[in-house]
Amino acid sequence: MKVVNVGLIGLGTVGTGTLRILQRNSQEITGRTGREITVTRVAVGDLNKQRDADLEGIVLSGDPMDIARDPAIDIVVEMIGGDDIAKEVVLEAIRHKKHVVTANKALIAVHGNEIFALAEKHNVAVTFEAAVAGGIPVIKAIREGLSANRIEWLAGIINGTCNYILTRMEQDGLGFAEVLSDAQALGYAEADPEFDVEGIDAAHKLTILASIAFGIPLQFDKLHIQGISEITIEDIEYAKELGFRIKHLGIARSSDAGIELRVHPAMVPVDRLIAGVNGVMNATLVQSDAVGPTLYYGAGAGAEPTGSAVVADIVDVVRSMGDIGENSGASPVPQLGFLPGSMPDRQIVPIEDVETAYYLRMKVINRPGVLAAITKIFGDSDISIATILQKSHGANNTEVTIIMLTQIALESNLNQAVTHIRKIDSVTSEIQSIRLENLA
Amino acid sequence: MKVVNVGLIGLGTVGTGTLRILQRNSQEITGRTGREITVTRVAVGDLNKQRDADLEGIVLSGDPMDIARDPAIDIVVEMIGGDDIAKEVVLEAIRHKKHVVTANKALIAVHGNEIFALAEKHNVAVTFEAAVAGGIPVIKAIREGLSANRIEWLAGIINGTCNYILTRMEQDGLGFAEVLSDAQALGYAEADPEFDVEGIDAAHKLTILASIAFGIPLQFDKLHIQGISEITIEDIEYAKELGFRIKHLGIARSSDAGIELRVHPAMVPVDRLIAGVNGVMNATLVQSDAVGPTLYYGAGAGAEPTGSAVVADIVDVVRSMGDIGENSGASPVPQLGFLPGSMPDRQIVPIEDVETAYYLRMKVINRPGVLAAITKIFGDSDISIATILQKSHGANNTEVTIIMLTQIALESNLNQAVTHIRKIDSVTSEIQSIRLENLA
Repeated sequence: MKVVNVGLIGLGTVGTGTLRILQRNSQEITGRTGREITVTRVAVGDLNKQRDADLEGIVLSGDPMDIARDPAIDIVVEMIGGDDIAKEVVLEAIRHKKHVVTANKALIAVHGNEIFALAEKHNVAVTFEAAVAGGIPVIKAIREGLSANRIEWLAGIINGTCNYILTRMEQDGLGFAEVLSDAQALGYAEADPEFDVEGIDAAHKLTILASIAFGIPLQFDKLHIQGISEITIEDIEYAKELGFRIKHLGIARSSDAGIELRVHPAMVPVDRLIAGVNGVMNATLVQSDAVGPTLYYGAGAGAEPTGSAVVADIVDVVRSMGDIGENSGASPVPQLGFLPGSMPDRQIVPIEDVETAYYLRMKVINRPGVLAAITKIFGDSDISIATILQKSHGANNTEVTIIMLTQIALESNLNQAVTHIRKIDSVTSEIQSIRLENLA
Repeated sequence: MKVVNVGLIGLGTVGTGTLRILQRNSQEITGRTGREITVTRVAVGDLNKQRDADLEGIVLSGDPMDIARDPAIDIVVEMIGGDDIAKEVVLEAIRHKKHVVTANKALIAVHGNEIFALAEKHNVAVTFEAAVAGGIPVIKAIREGLSANRIEWLAGIINGTCNYILTRMEQDGLGFAEVLSDAQALGYAEADPEFDVEGIDAAHKLTILASIAFGIPLQFDKLHIQGISEITIEDIEYAKELGFRIKHLGIARSSDAGIELRVHPAMVPVDRLIAGVNGVMNATLVQSDAVGPTLYYGAGAGAEPTGSAVVADIVDVVRSMGDIGENSGASPVPQLGFLPGSMPDRQIVPIEDVETAYYLRMKVINRPGVLAAITKIFGDSDISIATILQKSHGANNTEVTIIMLTQIALESNLNQAVTHIRKIDSVTSEIQSIRLENLA
């Protein structure tokens, strides 16, 4: 039995999960690869820290570069996260002709183009299934399973923290802040939650998904990013009344104008399968020209779910290795699904030019002419209203909440209309707007 | 640009879809493989039949063996179905060292072991993603995406005809026979529907799924197979009342006793994601030790959905080819996920030894002591009742329908209880039994 030597860099949640899976399921993994896969070295930040892991026979190292440069290591698994040290370690491992497996979405989304170019030069694989949607093999599905298709759009629930918060808000009737505290206590949200709840994490993942779906370079800086911190329990309840559920989505869509890349909360018809994806679970819906819609669902985070994707990548790399020392080349699948330069460059559509329907909510003083003034502004901005709900408040119905659903409208027109409506004296609240996504 | 020559055998629904995708999406496919993939020959049953396909530059042939033996063909795509001619053609193509892509579930389920052994001998790939769940890349997901995992069980809605019929029965309150006629008129069911509605088609697919999930040989003859023709609208309505939906499932489950392989209707809690998979759509839920539950959803049949899987397999084969003539070996992924002989042989659990909960429905004459007699029989057979519903019928409530949900019980105990209950005079109907599957 030939042995493949793996070096793990980082032994936090994902590192521990990865090591545990490789140890526990070694029989299955060997059955699938014909190789014994052994973790021989692990780099950790603190050599003296007690670890919940079986480290027998494993050499610990305080310096990740030791592993990146070790001639005995075949595959380096980067699980430290962030994009500074991780980047240096990954580039150094590639320079030493090692295959790299990473769970690091920020690293790939922001520095992927540079990393893949170096990997191609040195003929090694860099794989990153664990970087998007944890244990769901969605990278593989798009890059290989849907390779016959022209992908039209994809929409993903790709941040478990956001999905958990929105689900709890709906199910328990609680506000954002209250559920966030709970989520932090339960370990579903970080102490500093901004990265998740403001959409940065989802944007890293969407950057990667869009690149493999459309054959475009990774371009994180071009995304429109919006989080869920301004979603209120009112919005969730009105959505329900109107037959929708609010989900935080990453959407990439190909149109004549180019590629839309946007992360934001959206109202989804409640009978869509993806609307039933609750709690910390993730799912990605992909619309393609030949197969139509397909959906991939599972755990988007956690030690073993993410470790599952890391180990699947290791298995892929090992399966492609051929006899070691003889055909230890890169994977036959291009890192981003397409051979570099094989697809025409596509424009990223500025958010002002994106067209969707909208849900709008505002409070107004209940006096004659207000609704007429508001609807006139929409008409002047070329926006058609599909539905209006009016809800009374106050002792004498002095205030009402107006909820509107628009037809498909241009974002810049909507912004213009909102700017004008804000100036109406009788409008007493901010104007909440949430996109409607039909996903069909 | 290097060219890969493909020969298609069969130009029915799937053949036409495959050809159309290869032609329409050639730019994407070339971008993904670095190769031009050209269909040079097509074998058809009737050379004079008018085809809805662009056959320019393609040589038609009346004999599939012409293609299996053509030295200029790199990949043979078998889409004639059935397991007689198809088998001979596939074996001949392998003997001529051609890679084979097939959409033929019966062929793989029944003759796969023989075919794969020959393919290994000749170092060629035989791929069959299209054989299970049409365009959903579920074979790839299990064989590669979940390769880190010990799979515990999987449950699939893998026959679109059954799912369409059950969905329409529920949504429109119609009986099985009525919906079947409709489905036949709409092309969702064959003129001879037995293959689909009696579960044979799903059993072929489950055979394949189980093999790649557990590393066991293909053993179609060991499956327990039950269709949907005895499901009544009453059952569907009682299921709804009890919080369930009836789905036709293929289930493979690993337990200490071995592997369960069974195809049958089942009641699934209505809040499970898979319970929301309606109409002709398919989905497979896979429970694994590391990642937990994952689900794969999409179209399970149709020209382009199935063609999408065929073309994805072609892309996989082409990606693994390396430089043609130089490294044109088999795929690095074992055909059935595991290297032959690498996993211990597992017993297939006889259906009598399977344990599930049950829904039972029967009509009885409404007289004292009947329910006591029935419940005593269950107690004597070591079956606990979880829920009893009683529905009155007739002018004077002379008859009642009794619906029971049992706790987890052994199939042989249930059969014994049913045999005894049938003998009670007051029981006036057959005893309907449907398994309850919690799927969690």
